[in-house]
Amino acid sequence: MSASNGIKTVGLAPRLHNGFYGKDIISVRQFSREDLAYIFGVADEMRAVVKRVGSTDLLKGHVLACVFYEPSTRTSSSFIAAMSRLGGSVIPINEVRYSSVTKGESLPDTIRTLESYADVIVLRHPEVGASQVAAQYARKPIINAGDGVGEHPTQALLDLYTIQSDLGQIDGLHVAMVGDLRYGRTVHSLARLLCLYDVQMTFVSPEILRLPLDVMNELKAHGKSVRETYDVQDIIAEADVLYVTRVQRERFADQAQYEAVKDCYVITPELMQKAKERMIVMHPLPRVNEISYALDDDPRAAYFRQMENGMYIRMALLAAVLGKA
Amino acid sequence: MSASNGIKTVGLAPRLHNGFYGKDIISVRQFSREDLAYIFGVADEMRAVVKRVGSTDLLKGHVLACVFYEPSTRTSSSFIAAMSRLGGSVIPINEVRYSSVTKGESLPDTIRTLESYADVIVLRHPEVGASQVAAQYARKPIINAGDGVGEHPTQALLDLYTIQSDLGQIDGLHVAMVGDLRYGRTVHSLARLLCLYDVQMTFVSPEILRLPLDVMNELKAHGKSVRETYDVQDIIAEADVLYVTRVQRERFADQAQYEAVKDCYVITPELMQKAKERMIVMHPLPRVNEISYALDDDPRAAYFRQMENGMYIRMALLAAVLGKA
Amino acid sequence: MSASNGIKTVGLAPRLHNGFYGKDIISVRQFSREDLAYIFGVADEMRAVVKRVGSTDLLKGHVLACVFYEPSTRTSSSFIAAMSRLGGSVIPINEVRYSSVTKGESLPDTIRTLESYADVIVLRHPEVGASQVAAQYARKPIINAGDGVGEHPTQALLDLYTIQSDLGQIDGLHVAMVGDLRYGRTVHSLARLLCLYDVQMTFVSPEILRLPLDVMNELKAHGKSVRETYDVQDIIAEADVLYVTRVQRERFADQAQYEAVKDCYVITPELMQKAKERMIVMHPLPRVNEISYALDDDPRAAYFRQMENGMYIRMALLAAVLGKA
Repeated sequence: MSASNGIKTVGLAPRLHNGFYGKDIISVRQFSREDLAYIFGVADEMRAVVKRVGSTDLLKGHVLACVFYEPSTRTSSSFIAAMSRLGGSVIPINEVRYSSVTKGESLPDTIRTLESYADVIVLRHPEVGASQVAAQYARKPIINAGDGVGEHPTQALLDLYTIQSDLGQIDGLHVAMVGDLRYGRTVHSLARLLCLYDVQMTFVSPEILRLPLDVMNELKAHGKSVRETYDVQDIIAEADVLYVTRVQRERFADQAQYEAVKDCYVITPELMQKAKERMIVMHPLPRVNEISYALDDDPRAAYFRQMENGMYIRMALLAAVLGKA
Repeated sequence: MSASNGIKTVGLAPRLHNGFYGKDIISVRQFSREDLAYIFGVADEMRAVVKRVGSTDLLKGHVLACVFYEPSTRTSSSFIAAMSRLGGSVIPINEVRYSSVTKGESLPDTIRTLESYADVIVLRHPEVGASQVAAQYARKPIINAGDGVGEHPTQALLDLYTIQSDLGQIDGLHVAMVGDLRYGRTVHSLARLLCLYDVQMTFVSPEILRLPLDVMNELKAHGKSVRETYDVQDIIAEADVLYVTRVQRERFADQAQYEAVKDCYVITPELMQKAKERMIVMHPLPRVNEISYALDDDPRAAYFRQMENGMYIRMALLAAVLGKA
Repeated sequence: MSASNGIKTVGLAPRLHNGFYGKDIISVRQFSREDLAYIFGVADEMRAVVKRVGSTDLLKGHVLACVFYEPSTRTSSSFIAAMSRLGGSVIPINEVRYSSVTKGESLPDTIRTLESYADVIVLRHPEVGASQVAAQYARKPIINAGDGVGEHPTQALLDLYTIQSDLGQIDGLHVAMVGDLRYGRTVHSLARLLCLYDVQMTFVSPEILRLPLDVMNELKAHGKSVRETYDVQDIIAEADVLYVTRVQRERFADQAQYEAVKDCYVITPELMQKAKERMIVMHPLPRVNEISYALDDDPRAAYFRQMENGMYIRMALLAAVLGKA
């Protein structure tokens, strides 16, 4: 956002609530514990409204431009549903790359055009930092819906909200992240958010998919005690949260290595017999075979609740940045 | 639908009305005459509302996920218009195949994700039985908008509704189906629905495009007297309904055979001079040349009314499965 | 539109207001000065409503089919936003070419199908005259959103509205059009509309991109005094409006020629120092490098306001043809 346009103010995490009015949602780094408590409180209210009556008229007459430079049906559907349940309208733009808008047009020009139609813009873009650039030029709030290997803050918020919502708290928990911790954007973002809480973290991955050093150092700088291991068996009995991501065959140069480790990262009913009774299994979806379908009816399987929570979190964010939360 | 989820109940055609509340619309086989009378009655009301004031707020705050694994602009537009005229919102998902939702993701996972955002799901899928599978996993109602060469029940309903709406009744009519009766999904579905009524059916097609034996046997098992012929001239004077579909050149291995028969399946103003004054010509559209454009202004040409009726039928179904009819 | 359908009436520019009720918007040639004054007055009201409360319920319950045979995110987004801010709903159809609607289906059949669902149709089509054909068959109003190298009347209206809105009047102004005047559809349409006013026009282009002779003759037939020149420097000090379009390298067979002239058609802050204090720079967007980004903060840069005005003009047209202005 530019200081000169007189609409948005420069700054990191807002402190006074609703301090999100007119703000951009760009990075998990912008949130304080107070921010998260506020957003989660609004999300709780949104859930209550949806469960009771389906929708509200809170954003009636407001328009969201949902701009996806790369497809993500899950995320765009969640934002469209969120805006609809708030009584607002959506301009769905799913084919930016092939459209005349971007025939050589710069991202700032596209954003400045779309904000002349809409009140808020959700942006998905393949390049790291795209949302920050968009926010610098836009007078209207930008919500980052994923910028390449960069950030996907609304995913991290819904992940954290699911933990609090299902387990009643975040402080004091043991969170184990499993699978591809090297390339998994959601893992990095959630780990960063967890730094704000008193949690224990364990990272379970094959050697070549370990958490990157910079993320690890960031966690340590926050005084977190972190553990790493290769096998989910090592932590299954202790974990309050098992956050699972997929180990992809194509990450391994040596296929024998993949074959040797792959079964350590599949969550089965047998494995779950060793887990606590009160804990949750999460997954950002889509899954392939890293969580057995036989687990879906286990009340500890939280991944579909996680999806639903995404809608409540996005409702909360849309209402907040438009000053209606 | 799964019996364990506590929302939908297992069963075939509901008997008590509105017995559709929470139910799936999967197959024409699920409907009784009473069901059809109920749906057509609601569709009549929907038409009256649209003609009088354009729309209602019956489904205000409700969200439809319109999930098309293959494109069908006509059907998806009809459902979007139906939901809009009921005051509800739509998540249009037209590119499922190319989106991350389905990067190796199973249909049940996609459906369970989307039902966490929406109140009802309309599904178009290229594989036979896909809607039934979706319904087994979903807690929210699934409406089948075509599953490959399987079923397309809302098309059959709008076809039958058009007959009743234009001719005032179904019992006692002579319905002739013309053209490609072998591959035409709409023909098979409509014929099955007509088994519930006291109608006479004639099937007019080239030898290689005759009605499949299993459909024919099904009709006979219902005690229907059915006739087959090669030439539409044989029945043009008797038919109350002429349901026309296209005879495609590419169905014929022997092109001379195609040339020999093709003109028997083109409906022209000359042919229509032999038809009754009170009868209708129907077509599921798109047409190419099997109905002359010169016929469009003939009041017996019902195909554009048929399209419009599709919207009223879909309004009725959406309202019914959401318990608001 | 067909005279026989009893809904639309044949004719050119309507004179009595709201004379647009039920009419098609096909060509800039259909408008009188009175028409434009009426539309601009409604657009002013739409702007006031949006600035004050974001939206109205003027078209609540109405449905717009937005049918794009070729992509134009900017135009379709503008229409979707316009309909949303009027309280109406949109059926977005962005992939007509690849959809079953047009598997060999004629444009009239597609239009007649879609008008059975919608109250008004916005049509973008690659072929000249497509909107006129659609209007002949449709009972509901058609709005031309661009038909190939033909017309794009809503663009011309928003261009002219921006001049009036920013400079308070149109009569008495000196309008300079710069760049590719040969292929630029927007230039031709705006020039034609300007014939209704007492303006001076200057056309600034390379030799091979001069205004076509037929357009030039049309302007002269209206008694306009028109000037042509090669260099924007010649008119920069006099122009009240600088309407800039892009000079594309690929239009030149001789690249040396392109290199020789290209800098005459780039608007820079240095050039703008010679311009009047009260004047505007316009561009239909997207731009590439023909207007320096350094100009964006200059209050004379009108191109983003132009975009926003597009929404107000489209709100005015939708309300007018649906009889609600």
